[in-house]
Amino acid sequence: MSNTKAPLDFYFDFISPFGYFASLRIEALAAKHGRTVIWRPMLLGISVMKVMGMKPLLDTPLKGPYIERQVQRYSRLYGLELKRQPRDTFMNPLPAARLYYWLFDQDPAPESGLAKRAAQAIYHAYWADARDMGQADELVAVLAPLGIEEAAIREALANPAVAQRLRDAVEASIGRGVFGSPFVLADGEPFWGNDSLDLLDLWLSRGGW
Amino acid sequence: MSNTKAPLDFYFDFISPFGYFASLRIEALAAKHGRTVIWRPMLLGISVMKVMGMKPLLDTPLKGPYIERQVQRYSRLYGLELKRQPRDTFMNPLPAARLYYWLFDQDPAPESGLAKRAAQAIYHAYWADARDMGQADELVAVLAPLGIEEAAIREALANPAVAQRLRDAVEASIGRGVFGSPFVLADGEPFWGNDSLDLLDLWLSRGGW
Repeated sequence: MSNTKAPLDFYFDFISPFGYFASLRIEALAAKHGRTVIWRPMLLGISVMKVMGMKPLLDTPLKGPYIERQVQRYSRLYGLELKRQPRDTFMNPLPAARLYYWLFDQDPAPESGLAKRAAQAIYHAYWADARDMGQADELVAVLAPLGIEEAAIREALANPAVAQRLRDAVEASIGRGVFGSPFVLADGEPFWGNDSLDLLDLWLSRGGW
Repeated sequence: MSNTKAPLDFYFDFISPFGYFASLRIEALAAKHGRTVIWRPMLLGISVMKVMGMKPLLDTPLKGPYIERQVQRYSRLYGLELKRQPRDTFMNPLPAARLYYWLFDQDPAPESGLAKRAAQAIYHAYWADARDMGQADELVAVLAPLGIEEAAIREALANPAVAQRLRDAVEASIGRGVFGSPFVLADGEPFWGNDSLDLLDLWLSRGGW
């Protein structure tokens, strides 16, 4: 056996508050177990709505109010003040997710590098600061401090190959059984939901069971 | 303020494996915080299918295989050997749930008494022993050791008032926002899913946040 443990695969949608919460926890959780994390944006609009045939959580009777409360409850637990609320209009997650994979494919260190920092910046700008990260102008502004140039961003967003890269990534995620956000694969073992990160922690502590 | 803390309301469906897992954990969790528990069977067929408009979990692409795996994973974690598997045909949960409320209404100590022991016996017979607890004969056999008489059981199952009592209980649960199984209300605060019991534990430790 190799001493190098495989990275965790962390799937999320930028529009998902629970994905955001998990994004703030997953690196420390992984590090505790000597793991790195590969971030993999996906699209709930494809996996959950189209493949699973479900309607959006917030439009589901009974579950909608629970989800809103759960977001508030986790925000308070984690000491976060979110300017954006779940009932606010969703951003279009496509440009951000496309830019992520575009950066990822150029990144010599995808487990710790630029693509991940870009995702973290976008997540923070969207949930904590309530900026509309579906807009190219906002993406340009938020990614500028990371040294990502405006012209390159706009070119990437207009590039059909970049759009196709995201479609392929989403299709691959569905092929691996990923649904919902967050969703972690640890050596292929699936963990769905922010609530399941404690179970993931236990799983990694024990090496499974 | 009274020193007596309100009981937890523990909602579950007999057909739900996660409700079964939670039923094995909820009493110890509550006792740790000086709480008792009132058990309240509900019907996923009403709350989830009819009110929420969702299809059964196991029939949902991507989620179905995850649910199966999660049941296996929890079974191993808790050291349980379940003869019944999630894909097996469901029992009809109506007779068991009706008998529960029939016992509950006669029970001088519903937080610790006969109705709860009956529910635990039915849950065990269904999940651990794979008996068809939708059948009156099986209910009679499983409840006999608790001193519940066959004639009284058969009379209760034929009594329209007992059927109505369950309908009222299910309607009341929906009125309180309950969906899914397990579902716990702690001083009105909702916790959905076996995964959420750790959050409930933290909530009770801190007295909310």
